[in-house]
Amino acid sequence: MKLGRISVPGPDGPVARLVRVLPEEGRVVDLARAEALRLQGRHAEPDAARRLAAAAFPGSMTAAIATGDSLLETAEAATQHGGDDASIPLANVTWLSAADPRTLRDGLTFLGHINNMFGKWGTTPPEAMLSIPGYAKLATEGIIGHEDEVYFPHYINQMDYELELGYVVGRRGRNLTPDVARDYLFGVTIFNDFSGRDLQTNEMQIGMGGAKSKDFANGIGPWITTIDEIANLGSLRVEVRVNGETWSTSSTANSLWSVDELLAYVSLGEYILPGDVIGSGTVGNGSALELDRKLNPGDLVELEVESVGILRNRMGQRADETWWPSKRDGALIGR
Amino acid sequence: MKLGRISVPGPDGPVARLVRVLPEEGRVVDLARAEALRLQGRHAEPDAARRLAAAAFPGSMTAAIATGDSLLETAEAATQHGGDDASIPLANVTWLSAADPRTLRDGLTFLGHINNMFGKWGTTPPEAMLSIPGYAKLATEGIIGHEDEVYFPHYINQMDYELELGYVVGRRGRNLTPDVARDYLFGVTIFNDFSGRDLQTNEMQIGMGGAKSKDFANGIGPWITTIDEIANLGSLRVEVRVNGETWSTSSTANSLWSVDELLAYVSLGEYILPGDVIGSGTVGNGSALELDRKLNPGDLVELEVESVGILRNRMGQRADETWWPSKRDGALIGR
Repeated sequence: MKLGRISVPGPDGPVARLVRVLPEEGRVVDLARAEALRLQGRHAEPDAARRLAAAAFPGSMTAAIATGDSLLETAEAATQHGGDDASIPLANVTWLSAADPRTLRDGLTFLGHINNMFGKWGTTPPEAMLSIPGYAKLATEGIIGHEDEVYFPHYINQMDYELELGYVVGRRGRNLTPDVARDYLFGVTIFNDFSGRDLQTNEMQIGMGGAKSKDFANGIGPWITTIDEIANLGSLRVEVRVNGETWSTSSTANSLWSVDELLAYVSLGEYILPGDVIGSGTVGNGSALELDRKLNPGDLVELEVESVGILRNRMGQRADETWWPSKRDGALIGR
Repeated sequence: MKLGRISVPGPDGPVARLVRVLPEEGRVVDLARAEALRLQGRHAEPDAARRLAAAAFPGSMTAAIATGDSLLETAEAATQHGGDDASIPLANVTWLSAADPRTLRDGLTFLGHINNMFGKWGTTPPEAMLSIPGYAKLATEGIIGHEDEVYFPHYINQMDYELELGYVVGRRGRNLTPDVARDYLFGVTIFNDFSGRDLQTNEMQIGMGGAKSKDFANGIGPWITTIDEIANLGSLRVEVRVNGETWSTSSTANSLWSVDELLAYVSLGEYILPGDVIGSGTVGNGSALELDRKLNPGDLVELEVESVGILRNRMGQRADETWWPSKRDGALIGR
């Protein structure tokens, strides 16, 4: 099943709605509306039907996945019995981010990308990368959806995309082992970890993770494909196009750490939660840095992943200059 | 004003309640209950009074601060007109984390701590620390409150506390300048950034920020003191006690970056949101590493900050061993 989130007008302003996406039929089904119709067919009063439907299909993907095993069953029943009268043509849809995770983590697992990046930098990957599957955490407020414009900060010159799978967590777990981790995976979306390469170099020196180089925008969408529909998670074909030109084709093969190992590691000593998104790390040749290229304001970036779809975002114009910290000196030992 | 969150029994299980804390009177005021009483005194029907009061004082601090300028005014009115009949003795309170931020960031601003740490490691702080105020992001699910037990993962040997101020954001802002940043500061709490020093060294090499060394537990509490009650944010006395023994006394003086600069920097190119918590970074001598010490299972850690209070947590017993990744070799260039 493919599930996404869209924005529709409401009496108090825009409202988020959970939808089932039927790309081959060119439509989405508004699940809360379809479910209310289904329940009315089973003698529920209209107000009661809406109340139950809203509880089953909230506008938050995190809240929806948190309802557990009934989500996909109820979505199927709603589609069958109320979906035709609750459909919206794909062409009329305003997308929201497919996920709204409480915590957004980002792995680093594909060998091609790691080796390409360190090759360009002319340095050797740290030994620690061989002992633990490192991952970053990103601010969630910068998450955008399919066809949203990307904020382009004034302080980034070497702007980049990163083509990643977004692993969406299905249920709460802690201290998982790799052999059970797959049961905690709800589905896969496309994650574009937009990155400012010039700033990132400085931030990596400090060792606390990317911040200004990462958190201005994180694209998640266009929708989530549930894991049962993805037979070949380790060999999905992917492609990057910029302004319609193919910049690279690649796949999700050849990883230093498997998805199961990454999920299990992330769950050590802490809970992963329904709706959390964990980026796979960039696939080999999945960034412009690896191709000696960069993005400019106005560029249209399309990331395509087999079995999911295309996540398309246009870069905004460069934002106006703002305050930036002035350099300190002399206060640190040895400096 | 001092605001916190407590847990009380409800018909469906424990419920979070927002409270005003009156330490000198030995009590907290359940604000939703007090406000409902006040509104009934103004001819609201009981059900309507509860509904309005629950909207004004939700159990989430983030949701409460998001109500804007009316929060403190309404809390004062509720305390005056309904507080006596909605009080709970401090001794009977079960605390929750004072804040439940959407994003938990953690700065690094105090010179004493930076210089002490790098002195212990025998290395020089990176030059980048002088050009930007680095900060980390931490997972929010590991947040615990005053008197909660601290999860002690099996894979951490050199366990540490970190005494920090937690700056609580009052309203949405982006691209702030330091001269206006203070207006976005709601209040200050105490933040204990528990850290596994042995693991942290490995994670810092990877450059993506701390993860397993940081996200098992983050203490926030006991409550938030609003910024109007803190005259000397840059010279607050602080003290660390472990099992009743004073391990260090220090203050919030001598920072490389001011709170205003840190807040402004965090807001560049992204939104800070009501209820977000930004750690100040550890104060000088605010960690055990600086004292050549470490924490053991069962230790009682108290962090005291002038004008706020004492955040007290006991370390749990060491958790059972779990899966841990086995080392890779030969797959990375140069290794």
